[in-house]
Amino acid sequence: MTTGENTPETEPTGEDAYELDRKRVAQILFALDRDDREALVELMEPLHPADIADLLEQINAFDRGRLIRLYDKEFDGDILSELDESIREEVISALTPQVLADAVRDLDSDDVVDLLEDLEEPQQEAILDALEDSDRVAIEQSLSYPENSAGRLMQREVVTAPEHWTVGQAIDHMREAEELPEQFYHVVIVDPRMHPVGQVTLGRLMSSRRTKPLIEIIEETFQVIPAAQDEEDVAYAFNQYHLISAPVVDEDGRLVGAITIDDAMAVLDEEHEEDILRLAGVGEGSLSDRVSETTKQRFPWLAVNLVTAIFASLVIAQFEATIAQFVALAVLMPIVASMGGNAGTQSLTVAVRALATRDLTGSNVWRVIRREVLVGLINGAIFAVVMGIIGVVWFGTPMLGVVIAAAMVINLVVAGLAGTVIPVILDRIGVDPALASGAFVTTVTDVVGFFAFLGLAGAVLL
Amino acid sequence: MTTGENTPETEPTGEDAYELDRKRVAQILFALDRDDREALVELMEPLHPADIADLLEQINAFDRGRLIRLYDKEFDGDILSELDESIREEVISALTPQVLADAVRDLDSDDVVDLLEDLEEPQQEAILDALEDSDRVAIEQSLSYPENSAGRLMQREVVTAPEHWTVGQAIDHMREAEELPEQFYHVVIVDPRMHPVGQVTLGRLMSSRRTKPLIEIIEETFQVIPAAQDEEDVAYAFNQYHLISAPVVDEDGRLVGAITIDDAMAVLDEEHEEDILRLAGVGEGSLSDRVSETTKQRFPWLAVNLVTAIFASLVIAQFEATIAQFVALAVLMPIVASMGGNAGTQSLTVAVRALATRDLTGSNVWRVIRREVLVGLINGAIFAVVMGIIGVVWFGTPMLGVVIAAAMVINLVVAGLAGTVIPVILDRIGVDPALASGAFVTTVTDVVGFFAFLGLAGAVLL
Repeated sequence: MTTGENTPETEPTGEDAYELDRKRVAQILFALDRDDREALVELMEPLHPADIADLLEQINAFDRGRLIRLYDKEFDGDILSELDESIREEVISALTPQVLADAVRDLDSDDVVDLLEDLEEPQQEAILDALEDSDRVAIEQSLSYPENSAGRLMQREVVTAPEHWTVGQAIDHMREAEELPEQFYHVVIVDPRMHPVGQVTLGRLMSSRRTKPLIEIIEETFQVIPAAQDEEDVAYAFNQYHLISAPVVDEDGRLVGAITIDDAMAVLDEEHEEDILRLAGVGEGSLSDRVSETTKQRFPWLAVNLVTAIFASLVIAQFEATIAQFVALAVLMPIVASMGGNAGTQSLTVAVRALATRDLTGSNVWRVIRREVLVGLINGAIFAVVMGIIGVVWFGTPMLGVVIAAAMVINLVVAGLAGTVIPVILDRIGVDPALASGAFVTTVTDVVGFFAFLGLAGAVLL
Repeated sequence: MTTGENTPETEPTGEDAYELDRKRVAQILFALDRDDREALVELMEPLHPADIADLLEQINAFDRGRLIRLYDKEFDGDILSELDESIREEVISALTPQVLADAVRDLDSDDVVDLLEDLEEPQQEAILDALEDSDRVAIEQSLSYPENSAGRLMQREVVTAPEHWTVGQAIDHMREAEELPEQFYHVVIVDPRMHPVGQVTLGRLMSSRRTKPLIEIIEETFQVIPAAQDEEDVAYAFNQYHLISAPVVDEDGRLVGAITIDDAMAVLDEEHEEDILRLAGVGEGSLSDRVSETTKQRFPWLAVNLVTAIFASLVIAQFEATIAQFVALAVLMPIVASMGGNAGTQSLTVAVRALATRDLTGSNVWRVIRREVLVGLINGAIFAVVMGIIGVVWFGTPMLGVVIAAAMVINLVVAGLAGTVIPVILDRIGVDPALASGAFVTTVTDVVGFFAFLGLAGAVLL
């Protein structure tokens, strides 16, 4: 499955680089309509498994079933690994047991683990049964590590060399080895108890004299990953320290595998995706989810929002008498709440990101809070003047301008404060700030916004 | 600067993995207070340049200046590359010309390019002057590629081999080479006109017989990156096709360099960061920005929000008479707008992400729109019932319950529609949907929410 230099499915430059070619998708669907297996296989041939997975996600369930049946024996295991979880089960159910077995047998052990993690018991069994005994044992061992841990992410095959070896010995050893891993970029140097002490890149090995001791050409940056470490931390370490590959060790510090950067990059991508969706109150959303699943995913956050909105309404209800006397208040009050909500979202997003990248720590949290409050104060003051003028011009009541201006300053300062303090507190007590900060901050800015505006209006205008 | 297996600054497991140790930061600040260079150098010794950069970002400007002066000659060029843009200029200004020159000379050419891009003219000159002539020419050539392009991201040194070579020839060639790149993982196979035709991993080279033709062991997945391609697309290709390294070509398809996955991962990380911040209406924010910069960055989006909020207020103003007769409307109306805003944000975030990952295309856009509208309809119906009951119980007016329920359904359907259609249209006309969708969608849901609720109320209740 070679994706050549100028594969027709992608236009490497311009707006839609790497987007699936719409024409090809149409041709594939046309081949399905005609039940034309030969045309289908030919159209799919140049596509990378990752692109085929995207294709399966983009067409509807009916076409998906037809495509899988017609494509049949050509179905590659890598397509399964690339598929979005939301339709993986559906696709696996559609494959014949023989095609599934063949597909899975071609996969690397870490990809099989990734596949199994999210499947129901019977489908797990079907896949494990398709494997040879030795592979199955390796995979069951990987599954013994906690979910989302380095142990699940690693590959077990590592090329090692003892501390006292030279470049020549390492090269000869590799040249003579019966089997080397499919993908490897480093030789891990280990002490006699199998503790990693450094690693040497293959490139460095190539450019060094045979007599050079390995220990003299180990990489400057060397990080050992504990097998129990969360994959999010693994991705952070790869990105922070520019690692290409890192040895994984058990609790006793003994080498048990290695993680390469491509897996770390995939984790980084997923974690970001999760953060973005969580910040927007979308749980685990995926584009290929059905209406019923999507409805269920979106519901909880909307329900939380309804509660906070009602809470804000209860605040407004306290001032019904004031509003009845002065309807302009009803017209203007959403502006104060909306500005506070936006300013709060700005602060909380910066705080959530900074917590994720370890940039917001005990050392600078007070300085950051002070900054956010000051920013709220300055922007609040500017918008206070603007709104004050609008209030006066629009409704001809100078005091109304003063009230909305004061409420604006108060709410933007509170937004900066809440937008920073709430994520930090959630992080400290072990709750993902991306998930929960939004609801809290919006509640605060809504309540404070309405209360400050209507309260001041009641005191000053009546 | 070896970061060992158990460096004291990080706790590799647990909540705060890889976070800068607060105690060490305190000790470093204490060393600064005492002007104790020896203690400072010793405390900094185990820190990776990326961690030192984080440290500089986390302390205040005064301490930063003191640290740079005291650390002096020890200052490593890699620290500059790792520093956030927001304080890079400040740090460069604080370095003595000699320290700056030494620091920059140690860097790889692609890191120098990255450093230069964001600097003002005089600082660029200072750095270019510090370089040797050959390096300067190479860097000025890189800078001739457009900003954020593959050409700026690539390294120029590539190990190549002609198509007809065998494994043995390639190994001998490398063993005899005077100088090989610092970091390389592949040998790129080129035709006589220097067009890349495939690549071989060093690992595969190691595990193949000397007589094997290179062309028989080239990697299955092979992508050539045009030098003019946007770095965002480069990062996507690496993530989608699991590339470790890819050759870069000029307009004639000739090899001009190579990009490795660590640089692609850094771009992916930046692009995600940018998307998250843009979705929240925070331009280029960074935690180490000063109050004045942060205020300026946050201002534009708040100003846009003010305009949309005033727009919504103008809608409310149309119904002043209705509200005056029935103040309960003022109490309940923010609920409808708030629910619409949240549902719209959910839809738009999913759409913005799907556009970024090429999952939302011409092939499935109508199905996605239909799904979002249906989800809005179902969730709208559920919340309509809930709010209808609350409306009746709270205010004792059955028709008020009906009005709020109907407005809720309308606004959630519109939210699903606008939340998908607006990002898609912005993307089609070449505007970053992450940047602008929020303001448009919120305006739509505010206006529709208030208009539907107050309009229906005016028609039904009075």
